[in-house]
Amino acid sequence: MTMRGRFITLEGGEGAGKSTQATYVRDWLLAQGREVVLTREPGGSPMAEAIRAIVLGDWAEGVTPQTEVLLMFAARAAHWHATIEPALAAGKDVVCDRFVDSSHAYQGAGKGIAAEGMAALETLAIGRHRPDLTLLLDLPPDEGLKRTQARGEQNRFEFETLEFMQRVREGFLERARAEPGRFRIIDASRDAAAISAEIAGLLAGLPDQGA
Amino acid sequence: MTMRGRFITLEGGEGAGKSTQATYVRDWLLAQGREVVLTREPGGSPMAEAIRAIVLGDWAEGVTPQTEVLLMFAARAAHWHATIEPALAAGKDVVCDRFVDSSHAYQGAGKGIAAEGMAALETLAIGRHRPDLTLLLDLPPDEGLKRTQARGEQNRFEFETLEFMQRVREGFLERARAEPGRFRIIDASRDAAAISAEIAGLLAGLPDQGA
Repeated sequence: MTMRGRFITLEGGEGAGKSTQATYVRDWLLAQGREVVLTREPGGSPMAEAIRAIVLGDWAEGVTPQTEVLLMFAARAAHWHATIEPALAAGKDVVCDRFVDSSHAYQGAGKGIAAEGMAALETLAIGRHRPDLTLLLDLPPDEGLKRTQARGEQNRFEFETLEFMQRVREGFLERARAEPGRFRIIDASRDAAAISAEIAGLLAGLPDQGA
Repeated sequence: MTMRGRFITLEGGEGAGKSTQATYVRDWLLAQGREVVLTREPGGSPMAEAIRAIVLGDWAEGVTPQTEVLLMFAARAAHWHATIEPALAAGKDVVCDRFVDSSHAYQGAGKGIAAEGMAALETLAIGRHRPDLTLLLDLPPDEGLKRTQARGEQNRFEFETLEFMQRVREGFLERARAEPGRFRIIDASRDAAAISAEIAGLLAGLPDQGA
Protein backbone atom coordinates (compact mmCIF):
# COMPACT_ATOMS: atom_id res chain seq x y z
CA MET A 1 0.00 0.00 0.00
CA THR A 2 1.25 3.45 -0.90
CA MET A 3 2.02 5.70 2.06
CA ARG A 4 0.26 9.02 1.79
CA GLY A 5 2.52 11.98 0.89
CA ARG A 6 3.08 14.99 3.15
CA PHE A 7 1.30 18.28 2.48
CA ILE A 8 3.43 21.35 3.25
CA THR A 9 2.18 24.91 2.82
CA LEU A 10 4.02 28.24 2.92
CA GLU A 11 2.14 31.29 4.15
CA GLY A 12 2.82 34.94 4.83
CA GLY A 13 2.35 38.45 3.46
CA GLU A 14 3.74 39.97 0.27
CA GLY A 15 7.52 39.97 -0.06
CA ALA A 16 8.14 37.41 2.72
CA GLY A 17 10.00 35.04 0.40
CA LYS A 18 7.36 32.30 0.09
CA SER A 19 8.11 31.39 -3.53
CA THR A 20 11.88 31.20 -2.92
CA GLN A 21 11.43 29.01 0.12
CA ALA A 22 8.76 26.84 -1.57
CA THR A 23 11.35 26.01 -4.22
CA TYR A 24 13.88 25.31 -1.47
CA VAL A 25 11.44 22.91 0.24
CA ARG A 26 10.79 21.12 -3.05
CA ASP A 27 14.54 20.72 -3.74
CA TRP A 28 15.23 19.55 -0.17
CA LEU A 29 12.55 16.86 -0.43
CA LEU A 30 13.76 15.78 -3.89
CA ALA A 31 17.27 15.40 -2.44
CA GLN A 32 15.75 12.97 0.09
CA GLY A 33 14.46 10.85 -2.80
CA ARG A 34 10.81 11.93 -2.43
CA GLU A 35 8.51 12.61 -5.35
CA VAL A 36 7.30 16.20 -5.03
CA VAL A 37 4.62 18.40 -6.59
CA LEU A 38 5.26 22.16 -6.23
CA THR A 39 2.11 24.20 -6.67
CA ARG A 40 0.56 27.52 -5.64
CA GLU A 41 -2.69 29.31 -4.88
CA PRO A 42 -4.81 30.78 -6.20
CA GLY A 43 -4.36 28.37 -9.10
CA GLY A 44 -2.68 24.98 -9.40
CA SER A 45 -5.00 23.27 -11.90
CA PRO A 46 -6.19 24.48 -15.32
CA MET A 47 -9.61 25.43 -13.96
CA ALA A 48 -8.15 27.02 -10.81
CA GLU A 49 -5.72 29.06 -12.93
CA ALA A 50 -8.67 30.36 -14.97
CA ILE A 51 -10.35 31.38 -11.70
CA ARG A 52 -7.07 33.01 -10.58
CA ALA A 53 -7.09 35.17 -13.72
CA ILE A 54 -10.58 36.39 -12.78
CA VAL A 55 -9.91 37.06 -9.10
CA LEU A 56 -6.64 38.92 -9.73
CA GLY A 57 -8.11 40.80 -12.69
CA ASP A 58 -8.86 44.51 -12.79
CA TRP A 59 -12.67 44.70 -13.11
CA ALA A 60 -14.41 48.01 -13.71
CA GLU A 61 -17.37 46.74 -11.65
CA GLY A 62 -15.09 46.24 -8.63
CA VAL A 63 -14.54 43.02 -6.69
CA THR A 64 -16.28 42.78 -3.31
CA PRO A 65 -14.71 40.77 -0.46
CA GLN A 66 -17.65 38.34 -0.80
CA THR A 67 -17.04 37.64 -4.49
CA GLU A 68 -13.31 37.43 -3.83
CA VAL A 69 -13.54 34.87 -1.03
CA LEU A 70 -16.02 32.72 -2.98
CA LEU A 71 -13.66 32.68 -5.97
CA MET A 72 -10.65 31.88 -3.80
CA PHE A 73 -12.41 28.86 -2.31
CA ALA A 74 -13.76 27.78 -5.72
CA ALA A 75 -10.19 27.76 -7.04
CA ARG A 76 -9.08 25.87 -3.90
CA ALA A 77 -11.79 23.22 -4.33
CA ALA A 78 -10.68 22.64 -7.94
CA HIS A 79 -6.99 22.63 -6.96
CA TRP A 80 -7.60 20.17 -4.14
CA HIS A 81 -9.59 17.79 -6.31
CA ALA A 82 -7.44 17.92 -9.45
CA THR A 83 -3.91 18.33 -8.11
CA ILE A 84 -3.30 18.07 -4.37
CA GLU A 85 -5.39 15.08 -3.28
CA PRO A 86 -4.37 12.80 -6.22
CA ALA A 87 -0.67 13.58 -5.59
CA LEU A 88 -0.91 12.90 -1.84
CA ALA A 89 -2.83 9.67 -2.48
CA ALA A 90 -0.07 8.58 -4.90
CA GLY A 91 2.52 9.06 -2.14
CA LYS A 92 3.95 12.32 -3.47
CA ASP A 93 4.74 15.24 -1.21
CA VAL A 94 2.89 18.45 -2.12
CA VAL A 95 4.45 21.86 -1.49
CA CYS A 96 1.99 24.72 -1.88
CA ASP A 97 2.77 28.46 -2.01
CA ARG A 98 -0.28 29.84 -0.12
CA PHE A 99 -3.27 27.78 0.94
CA VAL A 100 -6.33 28.10 3.15
CA ASP A 101 -4.62 30.26 5.80
CA SER A 102 -4.13 33.01 3.21
CA SER A 103 -7.90 33.22 2.77
CA HIS A 104 -8.40 33.50 6.53
CA ALA A 105 -5.74 36.23 6.71
CA TYR A 106 -6.66 38.27 3.61
CA GLN A 107 -10.42 37.88 3.23
CA GLY A 108 -11.17 37.06 6.88
CA ALA A 109 -8.90 39.22 9.06
CA GLY A 110 -8.07 41.69 6.29
CA LYS A 111 -11.47 42.26 4.69
CA GLY A 112 -13.88 41.28 7.42
CA ILE A 113 -15.56 38.12 6.10
CA ALA A 114 -17.13 36.57 9.22
CA ALA A 115 -15.62 33.49 10.85
CA GLU A 116 -18.75 31.32 10.32
CA GLY A 117 -18.71 32.08 6.61
CA MET A 118 -14.99 31.26 6.41
CA ALA A 119 -15.50 27.96 8.25
CA ALA A 120 -18.36 26.93 5.93
CA LEU A 121 -16.25 27.70 2.85
CA GLU A 122 -13.30 25.73 4.24
CA THR A 123 -15.49 22.67 4.87
CA LEU A 124 -16.99 22.89 1.39
CA ALA A 125 -13.64 23.21 -0.38
CA ILE A 126 -11.39 20.78 1.52
CA GLY A 127 -13.56 18.90 4.02
CA ARG A 128 -11.50 18.00 7.09
CA HIS A 129 -8.14 17.98 5.30
CA ARG A 130 -5.41 20.30 6.56
CA PRO A 131 -1.68 20.61 5.75
CA ASP A 132 0.75 18.43 7.69
CA LEU A 133 3.09 21.41 8.12
CA THR A 134 2.57 25.12 7.54
CA LEU A 135 5.59 27.42 7.41
CA LEU A 136 4.50 30.95 8.25
CA LEU A 137 7.08 33.43 6.94
CA ASP A 138 6.42 36.34 9.26
CA LEU A 139 7.54 39.85 8.32
CA PRO A 140 6.51 43.41 9.24
CA PRO A 141 4.36 44.66 6.33
CA ASP A 142 6.50 47.73 5.58
CA GLU A 143 9.51 45.51 5.05
CA GLY A 144 7.55 43.19 2.75
CA LEU A 145 6.30 46.17 0.79
CA LYS A 146 9.86 47.46 0.23
CA ARG A 147 10.86 44.07 -1.17
CA THR A 148 7.93 43.76 -3.59
CA GLN A 149 8.48 47.33 -4.77
CA ALA A 150 12.17 46.57 -5.36
CA ARG A 151 11.07 43.56 -7.47
CA GLY A 152 8.71 45.76 -9.48
CA GLU A 153 5.87 43.25 -8.86
CA GLN A 154 2.34 44.35 -8.32
CA ASN A 155 -1.04 42.75 -8.15
CA ARG A 156 -4.40 43.95 -6.89
CA PHE A 157 -3.51 42.97 -3.32
CA GLU A 158 -0.28 44.94 -3.31
CA PHE A 159 -2.23 48.17 -3.68
CA GLU A 160 -3.78 47.62 -0.26
CA THR A 161 -2.78 49.84 2.65
CA LEU A 162 -0.19 49.03 5.30
CA GLU A 163 -3.03 48.98 7.81
CA PHE A 164 -4.69 46.20 5.79
CA MET A 165 -1.37 44.34 5.59
CA GLN A 166 -1.04 44.62 9.36
CA ARG A 167 -4.45 42.97 9.82
CA VAL A 168 -3.35 40.23 7.42
CA ARG A 169 -0.18 39.64 9.44
CA GLU A 170 -2.18 39.43 12.67
CA GLY A 171 -4.62 37.07 10.95
CA PHE A 172 -1.79 34.69 10.07
CA LEU A 173 -0.33 34.85 13.59
CA GLU A 174 -3.74 34.16 15.10
CA ARG A 175 -4.13 31.05 12.94
CA ALA A 176 -0.64 29.93 13.95
CA ARG A 177 -1.40 30.38 17.66
CA ALA A 178 -4.65 28.42 17.27
CA GLU A 179 -2.91 25.44 15.62
CA PRO A 180 0.61 25.25 17.06
CA GLY A 181 0.97 21.59 16.04
CA ARG A 182 0.64 22.42 12.35
CA PHE A 183 2.33 25.85 12.18
CA ARG A 184 5.93 26.96 12.49
CA ILE A 185 6.43 30.73 12.66
CA ILE A 186 9.63 31.74 10.88
CA ASP A 187 11.31 35.15 11.16
CA ALA A 188 11.39 36.20 7.51
CA SER A 189 13.35 39.41 8.07
CA ARG A 190 16.60 37.41 7.83
CA ASP A 191 18.35 36.54 4.57
CA ALA A 192 17.07 33.65 2.45
CA ALA A 193 19.91 31.27 3.38
CA ALA A 194 19.25 31.64 7.12
CA ILE A 195 15.54 30.99 6.57
CA SER A 196 16.26 27.94 4.41
CA ALA A 197 18.59 26.52 7.08
CA GLU A 198 15.81 26.78 9.68
CA ILE A 199 13.33 25.19 7.27
CA ALA A 200 15.69 22.27 6.60
CA GLY A 201 15.67 21.49 10.31
CA LEU A 202 11.87 21.56 10.40
CA LEU A 203 11.57 19.29 7.35
CA ALA A 204 13.95 16.76 8.92
CA GLY A 205 11.41 16.36 11.72
CA LEU A 206 8.47 15.50 9.43
CA PRO A 207 6.99 11.99 9.78
CA ASP A 208 7.44 9.75 6.71
CA GLN A 209 3.72 9.63 6.07
CA GLY A 210 1.15 12.37 5.66
CA ALA A 211 -2.04 12.57 7.69
CA MET B 1 -36.97 59.61 -2.59
CA THR B 2 -36.79 56.88 -5.19
CA MET B 3 -39.02 53.88 -4.53
CA ARG B 4 -37.11 50.64 -4.66
CA GLY B 5 -37.75 48.49 -7.76
CA ARG B 6 -39.25 45.01 -7.65
CA PHE B 7 -37.06 41.93 -8.03
CA ILE B 8 -38.72 39.11 -9.99
CA THR B 9 -37.02 35.77 -10.66
CA LEU B 10 -37.98 32.89 -12.95
CA GLU B 11 -36.99 29.39 -11.93
CA GLY B 12 -37.43 25.84 -13.16
CA GLY B 13 -35.70 22.97 -14.96
CA GLU B 14 -34.37 22.84 -18.50
CA GLY B 15 -36.94 23.46 -21.23
CA ALA B 16 -39.59 24.97 -18.93
CA GLY B 17 -39.74 28.23 -20.91
CA LYS B 18 -37.98 30.53 -18.41
CA SER B 19 -36.24 32.72 -21.02
CA THR B 20 -39.42 33.19 -23.07
CA GLN B 21 -41.44 34.12 -19.99
CA ALA B 22 -38.67 36.37 -18.61
CA THR B 23 -38.90 38.39 -21.80
CA TYR B 24 -42.68 38.45 -21.43
CA VAL B 25 -42.37 39.76 -17.85
CA ARG B 26 -39.94 42.46 -19.00
CA ASP B 27 -42.29 43.56 -21.81
CA TRP B 28 -45.34 43.54 -19.50
CA LEU B 29 -43.55 45.77 -16.98
CA LEU B 30 -42.29 48.12 -19.72
CA ALA B 31 -45.85 48.46 -20.96
CA GLN B 32 -46.78 49.65 -17.44
CA GLY B 33 -44.19 52.42 -17.79
CA ARG B 34 -41.63 50.80 -15.48
CA GLU B 35 -37.89 50.86 -16.11
CA VAL B 36 -36.73 47.25 -16.31
CA VAL B 37 -33.43 45.37 -16.31
CA LEU B 38 -33.64 41.83 -17.77
CA THR B 39 -30.74 39.65 -16.66
CA ARG B 40 -29.83 36.00 -16.08
CA GLU B 41 -27.71 33.65 -14.02
CA PRO B 42 -25.07 32.45 -13.97
CA GLY B 43 -23.80 35.75 -15.39
CA GLY B 44 -25.29 39.23 -15.55
CA SER B 45 -22.16 41.36 -15.07
CA PRO B 46 -18.85 41.22 -16.97
CA MET B 47 -17.12 39.41 -14.10
CA ALA B 48 -20.07 37.07 -13.52
CA GLU B 49 -20.16 36.23 -17.24
CA ALA B 50 -16.45 35.30 -17.07
CA ILE B 51 -17.27 33.01 -14.13
CA ARG B 52 -20.20 31.57 -16.14
CA ALA B 53 -17.78 30.63 -18.94
CA ILE B 54 -15.70 28.70 -16.41
CA VAL B 55 -18.54 26.91 -14.63
CA LEU B 56 -20.27 25.83 -17.87
CA GLY B 57 -16.96 24.90 -19.50
CA ASP B 58 -15.84 21.38 -20.34
CA TRP B 59 -12.82 20.81 -18.06
CA ALA B 60 -10.68 17.68 -18.43
CA GLU B 61 -10.07 17.76 -14.67
CA GLY B 62 -13.82 17.51 -14.00
CA VAL B 63 -15.95 19.91 -11.99
CA THR B 64 -16.95 18.74 -8.50
CA PRO B 65 -20.27 19.85 -6.97
CA GLN B 66 -18.23 21.83 -4.42
CA THR B 67 -16.31 23.82 -7.03
CA GLU B 68 -19.51 24.30 -9.00
CA VAL B 69 -21.55 25.70 -6.11
CA LEU B 70 -18.73 28.03 -5.03
CA LEU B 71 -18.48 29.41 -8.57
CA MET B 72 -22.26 29.81 -8.87
CA PHE B 73 -22.36 31.88 -5.67
CA ALA B 74 -19.25 33.87 -6.65
CA ALA B 75 -20.99 34.82 -9.91
CA ARG B 76 -24.14 35.65 -7.93
CA ALA B 77 -22.25 37.90 -5.50
CA ALA B 78 -20.73 39.81 -8.44
CA HIS B 79 -24.09 39.99 -10.25
CA TRP B 80 -25.86 41.23 -7.13
CA HIS B 81 -23.27 43.92 -6.44
CA ALA B 82 -22.74 45.16 -9.99
CA THR B 83 -26.17 44.80 -11.59
CA ILE B 84 -29.15 43.84 -9.44
CA GLU B 85 -28.76 45.97 -6.30
CA PRO B 86 -27.86 49.23 -8.15
CA ALA B 87 -30.87 48.79 -10.46
CA LEU B 88 -33.31 48.12 -7.59
CA ALA B 89 -31.91 51.07 -5.64
CA ALA B 90 -32.47 53.30 -8.70
CA GLY B 91 -36.14 52.24 -8.77
CA LYS B 92 -35.86 49.87 -11.72
CA ASP B 93 -37.54 46.48 -11.74
CA VAL B 94 -35.14 43.56 -12.22
CA VAL B 95 -36.24 40.38 -14.00
CA CYS B 96 -33.77 37.52 -13.59
CA ASP B 97 -33.75 34.20 -15.46
CA ARG B 98 -32.58 31.84 -12.65
CA PHE B 99 -31.37 33.02 -9.24
CA VAL B 100 -30.56 31.53 -5.85
CA ASP B 101 -33.28 28.86 -5.96
CA SER B 102 -31.54 27.26 -8.95
CA SER B 103 -28.46 26.69 -6.79
CA HIS B 104 -30.56 25.09 -4.06
CA ALA B 105 -32.25 22.85 -6.63
CA TYR B 106 -29.24 21.88 -8.78
CA GLN B 107 -26.27 21.87 -6.40
CA GLY B 108 -28.27 21.29 -3.20
CA ALA B 109 -31.10 18.85 -3.99
CA GLY B 110 -29.51 17.60 -7.23
CA LYS B 111 -25.88 17.15 -6.22
CA GLY B 112 -26.06 16.80 -2.45
CA ILE B 113 -24.39 19.99 -1.14
CA ALA B 114 -25.52 20.14 2.50
CA ALA B 115 -28.14 22.66 3.62
CA GLU B 116 -25.80 24.42 6.10
CA GLY B 117 -23.24 25.00 3.35
CA MET B 118 -25.94 26.33 1.03
CA ALA B 119 -27.25 28.70 3.71
CA ALA B 120 -23.75 30.06 4.42
CA LEU B 121 -23.14 30.67 0.71
CA GLU B 122 -26.49 32.42 0.35
CA THR B 123 -25.74 34.76 3.26
CA LEU B 124 -22.28 35.54 1.86
CA ALA B 125 -23.51 36.30 -1.65
CA ILE B 126 -26.75 38.22 -1.07
CA GLY B 127 -27.09 38.82 2.67
CA ARG B 128 -30.77 38.89 3.65
CA HIS B 129 -32.04 39.99 0.23
CA ARG B 130 -34.57 37.76 -1.56
CA PRO B 131 -36.72 38.25 -4.68
CA ASP B 132 -40.11 39.95 -4.27
CA LEU B 133 -41.69 37.35 -6.55
CA THR B 134 -40.42 34.03 -7.86
CA LEU B 135 -42.24 32.34 -10.73
CA LEU B 136 -41.50 28.61 -10.66
CA LEU B 137 -42.20 27.10 -14.09
CA ASP B 138 -42.85 23.52 -13.09
CA LEU B 139 -42.56 20.74 -15.66
CA PRO B 140 -41.92 16.97 -15.57
CA PRO B 141 -38.23 16.51 -16.49
CA ASP B 142 -38.88 14.17 -19.44
CA GLU B 143 -41.03 16.84 -21.05
CA GLY B 144 -38.39 19.51 -20.49
CA LEU B 145 -35.75 17.24 -21.98
CA LYS B 146 -37.81 16.71 -25.14
CA ARG B 147 -38.09 20.47 -25.57
CA THR B 148 -34.37 21.21 -25.16
CA GLN B 149 -33.51 18.35 -27.52
CA ALA B 150 -35.90 19.77 -30.10
CA ARG B 151 -34.11 23.14 -29.76
CA GLY B 152 -30.73 21.47 -30.25
CA GLU B 153 -29.41 23.21 -27.10
CA GLN B 154 -27.03 21.51 -24.74
CA ASN B 155 -24.88 22.49 -21.82
CA ARG B 156 -23.10 20.48 -19.16
CA PHE B 157 -26.28 20.31 -17.06
CA GLU B 158 -28.37 18.91 -19.88
CA PHE B 159 -26.25 15.76 -19.93
CA GLU B 160 -27.47 14.90 -16.44
CA THR B 161 -29.81 11.97 -15.93
CA LEU B 162 -33.60 12.15 -15.64
CA GLU B 163 -33.21 10.96 -12.04
CA PHE B 164 -31.05 14.04 -11.33
CA MET B 165 -33.59 16.28 -13.04
CA GLN B 166 -36.32 14.77 -10.87
CA ARG B 167 -34.34 15.69 -7.72
CA VAL B 168 -33.92 19.22 -9.12
CA ARG B 169 -37.68 19.49 -9.69
CA GLU B 170 -38.38 18.30 -6.14
CA GLY B 171 -35.78 20.77 -4.85
CA PHE B 172 -37.60 23.67 -6.53
CA LEU B 173 -41.00 22.52 -5.24
CA GLU B 174 -39.60 22.18 -1.72
CA ARG B 175 -38.29 25.75 -1.84
CA ALA B 176 -41.67 26.93 -3.09
CA ARG B 177 -43.54 25.14 -0.29
CA ALA B 178 -41.16 26.66 2.30
CA GLU B 179 -41.72 30.24 1.05
CA PRO B 180 -45.30 30.40 -0.27
CA GLY B 181 -45.37 34.19 0.06
CA ARG B 182 -42.59 34.63 -2.47
CA PHE B 183 -43.23 31.73 -4.87
CA ARG B 184 -45.92 31.07 -7.45
CA ILE B 185 -45.90 27.58 -8.95
CA ILE B 186 -46.92 27.67 -12.60
CA ASP B 187 -47.86 24.63 -14.67
CA ALA B 188 -45.33 24.92 -17.52
CA SER B 189 -46.71 22.00 -19.54
CA ARG B 190 -49.21 24.38 -21.17
CA ASP B 191 -48.45 26.52 -24.22
CA ALA B 192 -46.49 29.77 -23.81
CA ALA B 193 -49.52 32.05 -24.27
CA ALA B 194 -51.46 30.35 -21.47
CA ILE B 195 -48.47 30.64 -19.14
CA SER B 196 -47.98 34.32 -20.02
CA ALA B 197 -51.66 35.03 -19.32
CA GLU B 198 -51.33 33.53 -15.83
CA ILE B 199 -48.12 35.50 -15.23
CA ALA B 200 -49.81 38.77 -16.27
CA GLY B 201 -52.37 38.22 -13.51
CA LEU B 202 -49.64 37.63 -10.94
CA LEU B 203 -47.69 40.72 -11.99
CA ALA B 204 -50.81 42.86 -11.68
CA GLY B 205 -50.87 41.95 -7.99
CA LEU B 206 -47.31 43.13 -7.26
CA PRO B 207 -46.94 46.07 -4.86
CA ASP B 208 -45.55 49.26 -6.43
CA GLN B 209 -42.41 49.09 -4.32
CA GLY B 210 -39.85 46.31 -3.80
CA ALA B 211 -38.81 45.00 -0.40
